[in-house]
Amino acid sequence: MRVDHIGIAVKNLDEAVKFYRDILGLELVKIEEVPEERVRVAMFRAGGTYVELLQGTDPDSAITKFVERRGEGIHHISIHVEDVDAKTEELKARGVALVYDKPREVAHGERKINFIHPRSAFGVLIEIMTRRGEY
Amino acid sequence: MRVDHIGIAVKNLDEAVKFYRDILGLELVKIEEVPEERVRVAMFRAGGTYVELLQGTDPDSAITKFVERRGEGIHHISIHVEDVDAKTEELKARGVALVYDKPREVAHGERKINFIHPRSAFGVLIEIMTRRGEY
Repeated sequence: MRVDHIGIAVKNLDEAVKFYRDILGLELVKIEEVPEERVRVAMFRAGGTYVELLQGTDPDSAITKFVERRGEGIHHISIHVEDVDAKTEELKARGVALVYDKPREVAHGERKINFIHPRSAFGVLIEIMTRRGEY
Repeated sequence: MRVDHIGIAVKNLDEAVKFYRDILGLELVKIEEVPEERVRVAMFRAGGTYVELLQGTDPDSAITKFVERRGEGIHHISIHVEDVDAKTEELKARGVALVYDKPREVAHGERKINFIHPRSAFGVLIEIMTRRGEY
C-alpha cells in the first residue's frame, strides 16, 4: 500500500498551477478534464507520489460544493491497494463506511476507485484505488 | 522534491492508530511524543511517503486548536526539499507567506522545517523540510 496522490480542491486551476509549478517547483505531468467527475485536474509528480489539483466544472461537482462549504484545501488522500474490489469487501465486513457499494471504474478503466467515508477515517476522505496506467 | 508525509490531526491518537494500522492496514513505524511541538505522533509507512497522525497534548497546541476549529482531518502536507534554508529565501523573495522567517530545527536537528502559509498555497498548509535521519 502506498500513497498514490493527494487531492487539493481549488477555485481556479490555472492560478493554482502557477503557484505549484512555477513557485513551489513541482513537475506538472498533465492537465485534463474529467467530464464524468465534473472536474479539471492538474497532476504533479512529487517523488513516488503525486499532487492533484481539482477544480469543479459545474455547480453540482463534489469539488465545487467542497470549496463552497469548507474553502480551498486538501480534499482527499488516495491510497493504492493491490485489489480495490477485495479491499472494499474487507472494509465493509469490518464495518467501515464506504461511499460506493462496489468500486467504480474511471479514466476509461485505467483506475478503479472507492472512498472511505470521513466518519470512518477520523475526518479524512480516503480514496482507495487500483491503477493500471501512468498519469 | 517529493512528498515526505501527510499530517492528519486527530483527537485520540490510540483510537486513530487502530483504524489506520489494524483496519486500513498501513505499517506503523513508531509512536512518539514531541514535547517542543506539544503533540503525540504516529508515523506510518505508505510506499515512499508517510502518513503522520498528530494529537495535541496541550490546549495551546496548534493541533488541538485546529481540531477545535475545523474538526479532525488532514492538517498539512510536507514536501522534502534539498535545502530548506535556500527554499525559504527563494520563496520569500517571490512574495510567498512563510510561517517562520528562518527554518526551525526539530527532532534534535534531524529535520529542519518551515511552513508555507495556506493563504499563499490555495488553502493548504505546506511544510517544507530537509530531513537527514529516518523516521
